[in-house]
Amino acid sequence: MIHTFTVKVYYEDTDAGGVVYYANYLRFMERARTEYLSELGVSVADLHNAGQLLVVTHVDIDYRQPAHLGDVLEVTTEVEEVKTVRVILRQRVSRQGTELVDARVTFACIGPDGKPQRIPPVFAPA
Amino acid sequence: MIHTFTVKVYYEDTDAGGVVYYANYLRFMERARTEYLSELGVSVADLHNAGQLLVVTHVDIDYRQPAHLGDVLEVTTEVEEVKTVRVILRQRVSRQGTELVDARVTFACIGPDGKPQRIPPVFAPA
Amino acid sequence: MIHTFTVKVYYEDTDAGGVVYYANYLRFMERARTEYLSELGVSVADLHNAGQLLVVTHVDIDYRQPAHLGDVLEVTTEVEEVKTVRVILRQRVSRQGTELVDARVTFACIGPDGKPQRIPPVFAPA
Amino acid sequence: MIHTFTVKVYYEDTDAGGVVYYANYLRFMERARTEYLSELGVSVADLHNAGQLLVVTHVDIDYRQPAHLGDVLEVTTEVEEVKTVRVILRQRVSRQGTELVDARVTFACIGPDGKPQRIPPVFAPA
Repeated sequence: MIHTFTVKVYYEDTDAGGVVYYANYLRFMERARTEYLSELGVSVADLHNAGQLLVVTHVDIDYRQPAHLGDVLEVTTEVEEVKTVRVILRQRVSRQGTELVDARVTFACIGPDGKPQRIPPVFAPA
Repeated sequence: MIHTFTVKVYYEDTDAGGVVYYANYLRFMERARTEYLSELGVSVADLHNAGQLLVVTHVDIDYRQPAHLGDVLEVTTEVEEVKTVRVILRQRVSRQGTELVDARVTFACIGPDGKPQRIPPVFAPA
Repeated sequence: MIHTFTVKVYYEDTDAGGVVYYANYLRFMERARTEYLSELGVSVADLHNAGQLLVVTHVDIDYRQPAHLGDVLEVTTEVEEVKTVRVILRQRVSRQGTELVDARVTFACIGPDGKPQRIPPVFAPA
Repeated sequence: MIHTFTVKVYYEDTDAGGVVYYANYLRFMERARTEYLSELGVSVADLHNAGQLLVVTHVDIDYRQPAHLGDVLEVTTEVEEVKTVRVILRQRVSRQGTELVDARVTFACIGPDGKPQRIPPVFAPA
């Protein structure tokens, strides 16, 4: 499954270079992951309230082309790899078919005791 | 006209107090203003590319109740007052009918020469 | 006492308009308040860990002149008014003697039970 | 040369998980890079005003341990590799000797014409 999430670029997302500030793509990707999980039936807020955190442990991100004020961006999310205690998601940002950013985001699940937990079964490969 | 814009609260919007960080409501309000203007036929990005900026000159904001991770918020925008070179918008944030934040945001229009311009006629009272 | 805190403007603080994004002055002011309180012997992190939050309830802020990338700004903080359950701080941002932003920030203290508490005596007028 | 830059964690940097939000380490690293360049005699603001941008093209970042409100962090910056049109910097964030985050940040220099330029000679290996 490839999940698609739409983001519009506002002034808050840009910097004096006239483009989206590099850290802000990570914000867009977190929004997209949250909605992706929501579609899978996992509520990040419910996990949070139960003391479980989905913690990003690694990001590998390529910035290919800049995005600008007013752009409408598509953020796609798909599972690239699932292990016992971590998941790697592939997240790409594009504008009208042109890929701007391409990232691999690894996360783990931390329980209320602060220790790694099994990844929710929703990610388990078929 | 009262314009309504929906915002979902993600981790990026919250702080260690477990609530939305106070500066971030100003980000929500800018998004709502941009969409409000868009409905009036004014593109903030087009203005920007033409060298015109809508500059906030004053904010008066009451924080009444906090918002939390996962909340779905409504941001309403309406014109409170229009003068030759400035507009005051009333922007409120609420969650399921409960008002959380109430603000008056004043802005002016600055031209490519850096000088105040007349407010776009779209704001002119009937 | 007037407390002075220095902030340098980085890309993260600016927007495509080439100036500091309006919400970010509230971040600068929070940094300045934290250091101001630290000088008074109050650790915001210690309060936080004890379940006490200093919550902003109102901001009234004038934006007079923009700040730009690379600017070194002075943020001054002083007490304007102290009441039993709230304090109003006056916070100004200037660049080489020119005032850019002028704000009144009201905050209250919330205890671990979520209820307002007396303001820490450190703010009490002489 | 290893450059060291100190960052204090404020509420703005944290999220509802009680830790520094993952995108914000990229803000810390940009501040550190700017100061590192400043020590080398390169002003990011001057480059900007001359129409030259240092553009991040790739980030590979490991998040090992979280940082919390009030933490005082050290961000170190050093050159890992220099090529004709790009530089890879190694940037690490630590707290009292414990490494929290470890990143490789690649950037290129873009001229006023939007095209890649030679990296400023200041990065040239001895």
